Amino acid sequence: MGHKAFDVQRYLLENKLFVDRALDHYLKPNHKMSLLRQAVCYSVLDGGKRFRPTLTLAVGELFGAKRRVLLSFACAIELIHCYSLIHDDLPALDNDDLRRGKPSCHKRFGEAIALLAGDALLTEAFFIMSDPRMARLLGAPLISKLIREVSDAASIRGMIGGQSTELELIKHKVTPAVLEGLDRLKTGALITTAARVGAIIGGAARKDLDRVTRYAQSLGLAFQITDDILDAHEVSSDNSNHKGIANYVSVAGPARASERVKGLLAACLREMQPYGSAAEPLREIARHVAQRTE
Amino acid sequence: MGHKAFDVQRYLLENKLFVDRALDHYLKPNHKMSLLRQAVCYSVLDGGKRFRPTLTLAVGELFGAKRRVLLSFACAIELIHCYSLIHDDLPALDNDDLRRGKPSCHKRFGEAIALLAGDALLTEAFFIMSDPRMARLLGAPLISKLIREVSDAASIRGMIGGQSTELELIKHKVTPAVLEGLDRLKTGALITTAARVGAIIGGAARKDLDRVTRYAQSLGLAFQITDDILDAHEVSSDNSNHKGIANYVSVAGPARASERVKGLLAACLREMQPYGSAAEPLREIARHVAQRTE
Repeated sequence: MGHKAFDVQRYLLENKLFVDRALDHYLKPNHKMSLLRQAVCYSVLDGGKRFRPTLTLAVGELFGAKRRVLLSFACAIELIHCYSLIHDDLPALDNDDLRRGKPSCHKRFGEAIALLAGDALLTEAFFIMSDPRMARLLGAPLISKLIREVSDAASIRGMIGGQSTELELIKHKVTPAVLEGLDRLKTGALITTAARVGAIIGGAARKDLDRVTRYAQSLGLAFQITDDILDAHEVSSDNSNHKGIANYVSVAGPARASERVKGLLAACLREMQPYGSAAEPLREIARHVAQRTE
Repeated sequence: MGHKAFDVQRYLLENKLFVDRALDHYLKPNHKMSLLRQAVCYSVLDGGKRFRPTLTLAVGELFGAKRRVLLSFACAIELIHCYSLIHDDLPALDNDDLRRGKPSCHKRFGEAIALLAGDALLTEAFFIMSDPRMARLLGAPLISKLIREVSDAASIRGMIGGQSTELELIKHKVTPAVLEGLDRLKTGALITTAARVGAIIGGAARKDLDRVTRYAQSLGLAFQITDDILDAHEVSSDNSNHKGIANYVSVAGPARASERVKGLLAACLREMQPYGSAAEPLREIARHVAQRTE
């Protein structure tokens, strides 16, 4: 019998459906919701790829953690990602009318509700992370350590710091190196913490946690640069504020951007080397990101 | 020698200065800050009254907690309060140009930075609450329990829920009872959790925690109604969106509003009865709120 290749598409779909079910459980959509809860469910339960929670699950399972103990933190990180998209799309920031092929939250519910929906999702992430049932499963010291980890990644020293630095750099000439530093915060910090949370819950040793961190830092940067490559192929939407914002393709050119992605993929694969076939999902996730077309 | 009366003005000032020093320590203002950190410091370190953290300190001390173990949660609740003010002031919500006699955050730094500054403060609150030094002092189970408590109060079931319900009720005729229900969420939830956090850290028994909860619920509502009474005396600012929003004075009239505050003060004092002179600060805080002129 031949060796059956790892089916990454199927793996990603299964993980997405698993995360979608958990998000449904946390947000409990129904037909009598307030406008705010409608906006929250509209923005989260909308067929996102669930890349970050899938990363938490994949890394956690590499270190032997059960999925159900990974799920609350995986979902909390997805809620933080969704809040950042809602606020990013607002007219004060990117002014995007569309998100994943449908009207962005403020286009559908108005700016006031969109602002509060983002606030509600960020808050709910911490409510979910501090669920006492999870504290009993994982132990309170781990919960407190993980909340520290995630809040730091989403903070002024991480994701929000990257977003505001991007604003400050609008219309300035930036180098690819400066842009990489910014992307490591803006997109990279939350992706890195998604992977680290999996490793920490799985009880990874310090050396392994460092490997996972480097893997995820390269993966996050590759994710942002492929995003920039895909954006460059799209007709830019007329209303958005993207024009003044530099990205890797506009700064380094498409050829150098593709080369950089290849280098980052190689870095991801190198970090996974010691784990043999157990790391096949994480290798395939990295290949998938490097070659993604959507 | 005569009995020396409790000096509430002095007590409030001492607590304010104590909290101000701690906020300074957490936010570390300096002369080389990014625009975002400037906006964060501008909005927090601006001479607020520090009512919520003072309540945490006062309740915690009633149950024998030391100030330094109360301080991180007291400050985190103040940061959540400050974030809610920044987002509330945005044009999409109240559109207020002034906050505490100076330009509101978005008037001074622009809407994009103000939006991110609010996000940063909410995130930082959870970073501070999960500080590992506090976990060592208080024990991780208590940290996790308190984060659950605070995130719930600030959530769609608490503060944010109140804010969005207020939006939904604009231009609807509401009764004083409906308005009280809304105020119990919008302003009351965070004030109640400020008091409860103090009691929980102080190791209050269930019955005492229930008393503190009822005290703070009455106090929070009195705080909102006296706010409405003070607002009615002010010339309304021209740009703000307040006009469509009902408040206790516009719905029930000033006489009934004043009567309600008296009743709420009596409820606060009644809950503090069992604690004798140890509860004098909390009694005086309630009297101060009921009679406040600013």
